[in-house]
Amino acid sequence: MAKDKKLVEAITSMEEDFAKWYTDVVKKAELIEYSSIRGCMIIRPNGYAIWENIQKELDAAFKATGVENVYMPMFIPESLLQKEKDHVEGFAPEVAWVTHGGNEPLQERLCVRPTSETLFCEFYSNIIQSYRDLPKLYNQWCSVVRWEKTTRPFLRTMEFLWQEGHTAHATAEEAEERTIQMLNVYADFCENVLAIPMIKGRKSEKEKFAGAQATYTIEALMHDGKALQSGTSHNFGDGFARAFDIQYTDKDNKLQYVHQTSWGMTTRLIGAIIMVHGDDSGLVLPPRIAPTQVMVIPINQNKEGVMDAALELKEKLGVYRVKVDLSDKSPGWKFSEQEIQGIPLRVEIGPKDLKANQAVIVRRDTREKIIVSLDDIVAKVGETLDKMQSDMINRAKEHRDTHTYTVKTMEEFEKTAAEKPGFIKAMWCGDEACENEIKDKTGATSRCMPFEQEHIADTCVCCNKPAKTMVYWGKAY
Amino acid sequence: MAKDKKLVEAITSMEEDFAKWYTDVVKKAELIEYSSIRGCMIIRPNGYAIWENIQKELDAAFKATGVENVYMPMFIPESLLQKEKDHVEGFAPEVAWVTHGGNEPLQERLCVRPTSETLFCEFYSNIIQSYRDLPKLYNQWCSVVRWEKTTRPFLRTMEFLWQEGHTAHATAEEAEERTIQMLNVYADFCENVLAIPMIKGRKSEKEKFAGAQATYTIEALMHDGKALQSGTSHNFGDGFARAFDIQYTDKDNKLQYVHQTSWGMTTRLIGAIIMVHGDDSGLVLPPRIAPTQVMVIPINQNKEGVMDAALELKEKLGVYRVKVDLSDKSPGWKFSEQEIQGIPLRVEIGPKDLKANQAVIVRRDTREKIIVSLDDIVAKVGETLDKMQSDMINRAKEHRDTHTYTVKTMEEFEKTAAEKPGFIKAMWCGDEACENEIKDKTGATSRCMPFEQEHIADTCVCCNKPAKTMVYWGKAY
Repeated sequence: MAKDKKLVEAITSMEEDFAKWYTDVVKKAELIEYSSIRGCMIIRPNGYAIWENIQKELDAAFKATGVENVYMPMFIPESLLQKEKDHVEGFAPEVAWVTHGGNEPLQERLCVRPTSETLFCEFYSNIIQSYRDLPKLYNQWCSVVRWEKTTRPFLRTMEFLWQEGHTAHATAEEAEERTIQMLNVYADFCENVLAIPMIKGRKSEKEKFAGAQATYTIEALMHDGKALQSGTSHNFGDGFARAFDIQYTDKDNKLQYVHQTSWGMTTRLIGAIIMVHGDDSGLVLPPRIAPTQVMVIPINQNKEGVMDAALELKEKLGVYRVKVDLSDKSPGWKFSEQEIQGIPLRVEIGPKDLKANQAVIVRRDTREKIIVSLDDIVAKVGETLDKMQSDMINRAKEHRDTHTYTVKTMEEFEKTAAEKPGFIKAMWCGDEACENEIKDKTGATSRCMPFEQEHIADTCVCCNKPAKTMVYWGKAY
Repeated sequence: MAKDKKLVEAITSMEEDFAKWYTDVVKKAELIEYSSIRGCMIIRPNGYAIWENIQKELDAAFKATGVENVYMPMFIPESLLQKEKDHVEGFAPEVAWVTHGGNEPLQERLCVRPTSETLFCEFYSNIIQSYRDLPKLYNQWCSVVRWEKTTRPFLRTMEFLWQEGHTAHATAEEAEERTIQMLNVYADFCENVLAIPMIKGRKSEKEKFAGAQATYTIEALMHDGKALQSGTSHNFGDGFARAFDIQYTDKDNKLQYVHQTSWGMTTRLIGAIIMVHGDDSGLVLPPRIAPTQVMVIPINQNKEGVMDAALELKEKLGVYRVKVDLSDKSPGWKFSEQEIQGIPLRVEIGPKDLKANQAVIVRRDTREKIIVSLDDIVAKVGETLDKMQSDMINRAKEHRDTHTYTVKTMEEFEKTAAEKPGFIKAMWCGDEACENEIKDKTGATSRCMPFEQEHIADTCVCCNKPAKTMVYWGKAY
């Protein structure tokens, strides 16, 4: 029992040190291992299986809207990166440069893609001629590199995995429509599959993507009250098209510039799952994304019939993603591992259960124990997974709502930001000077101008001039 | 009709210039687009969808043997690459070097992974302690970079997509067993799904992987009589384990080195599909790998009921991967596109067919036309796809067998290599000097020492000393 305890005790408590709790969880749940390359992590099977499920769900959702996958080169020639002024200013300071191939210095250095707008633009300028070629709805799954100074597993790493969608349209309206459509795909996925509620809105000019006309975002609140930007969708207008000369002949045989969008989600989502749902025993995975949904654990497995019953139970529950732990570890040790790894349900079966034709289902989130007849167990496991999924989104919503504050004055803003971790709703005039002043005084940045606006006051919380919009503010990852 | 012709005529005939035919096909079938980065290609939706199907099939086959997926960093520090002597000699001349991050020069330069043995070894040395941690059966899907001088789409590109499996085992026997197991997974996949027959065998010392104890390979014959190495599986013994100090305590509490394997397949497989099955009208995709298996094309689509019937047919055939082409192009143009893209079946339906309650199925490979009642069409399409799949592997086998020659003397060898493109079977003494001499005289390299040996003669075809083994030789991509 001492040994079993140790596994759990190795996780720092959330209340004590949230950052340490987080790194303990990613390590103990075997999601990642550090590598000797600064800021790069190894994603282990437990972590990668979550990413595979995210990919599967998102990819199907993209394809349902007509998106097709492609693969672009990982290198961008320096001259190509420089074609769009704002874009290069945003990214050049944080790219990795390849200067040698084999033993030869390159004539032009290549950066490892930090994002692929410039590559897609060059591609589109080659393959788009006529209105018949539009729209182009392409996406790619790949890794990108950004030379970050400080890194944290999943949240900010030098290399990370993501998808980047890039579309080209005949009209500005169509591009705007696609930008919002993909933001909704993201938000629906996060709410329905990851059980994470999202605030949907638009980024301020200061916070928007380098080269975009408008950036839309989904923002989530973590357990520690910090915000996490979880996905973004950008409308480029025809800015990139003009820089890269992407034109098509319309039905009247006139040359027109295309209108473009891009949208991305990353392995950062795994960080969100951890920080929204985890607890002091480790990870808690929403059933819909969990690589293993049910772990069958035999009790007194050396007693006659127990191992067979556990195996039989595993077979019976085969409609779910189920495993059985028949290792020679103690049941307590197995429970700890299942809990640390966040497997939604544990099903215990021992000699006493066998006699009573029953098993014990234990929920990872509430630890509720449910004794169930073996005759009903398939349906009951399904019900319990569904209940757990909906309880998890409800709890996350409640946590967010009880940690969202409304302020009308800077005094209130400063006090709230200092004392109450969470989202702060306040009115804003739209002036970047106020955005900067708020950040200096409170540490909070503008997260988004939500689509669901509320009228809190007539004037900007900072300068008292007429307000244009209500903004969600917060300290962010 | 002049326009329709043009699309097809743009493909050079195979007999005229096979290399040009190949690049015409990859371009016209919209598998790839060239990029401005030397040696890197853009994989377009038609090409990437084939890769997605390859991934899906192979990934499931790997997982069925217990393999788990991970993701490793794309960078390797120079000092790590240098840890295994043979390995670094093999790869250092062809890697891309990152020397700057943002505006800062790096203290140690990083190469973009050409393959990830060194990263996996470092990882394994951190996570393997006890026999309980073995085996480790990990795989990753990623891109790798090799600074190639001459490149050709899919066959040899600077960056390419692949999977690399890396396993660690307690014993030498287990490692050898896994090496062969994965080679068989590869060969079965190629034969059953890609309809490409493979010769399975072992590479000579000269041709083996840098750092391996033994390399096994599957070799296929292309339509032009050249060989293509299609997948390799390496047994590393404990060589890497000693270089990277990967040890575990066995059941007797003694320290032991692990035994390792690695195995990989790449986007080169798409090149194999093209060069084994393609014809002068373009690509011919085996039904099991084709992203679209059936294209429904209405004839006289503006006649009453035709478009509706085509749409209905598409619904009806929904158990297959089916599309309908309702664009305003002419039927002839649509036929050409479907043929160039290699879509296995075309189903034509027009006013006359409607009246007769029938449709016309046209096979892409044989161009056979099958008139079938709409009542039986679902079953008939399934049958025809199956028939086409098995006909394709049979034709490929026949082509290979009729282009495989047995020689007993160097004179015969030289004459055959000069006049008859194909595999050449000949005995070998095992001496690298003979391997080199044969290459110099004939242009053929040793492809493999096949598992299925034949006794052709007692002596080496080159030096006449006692022969050790029968070898498949060939000119290779």
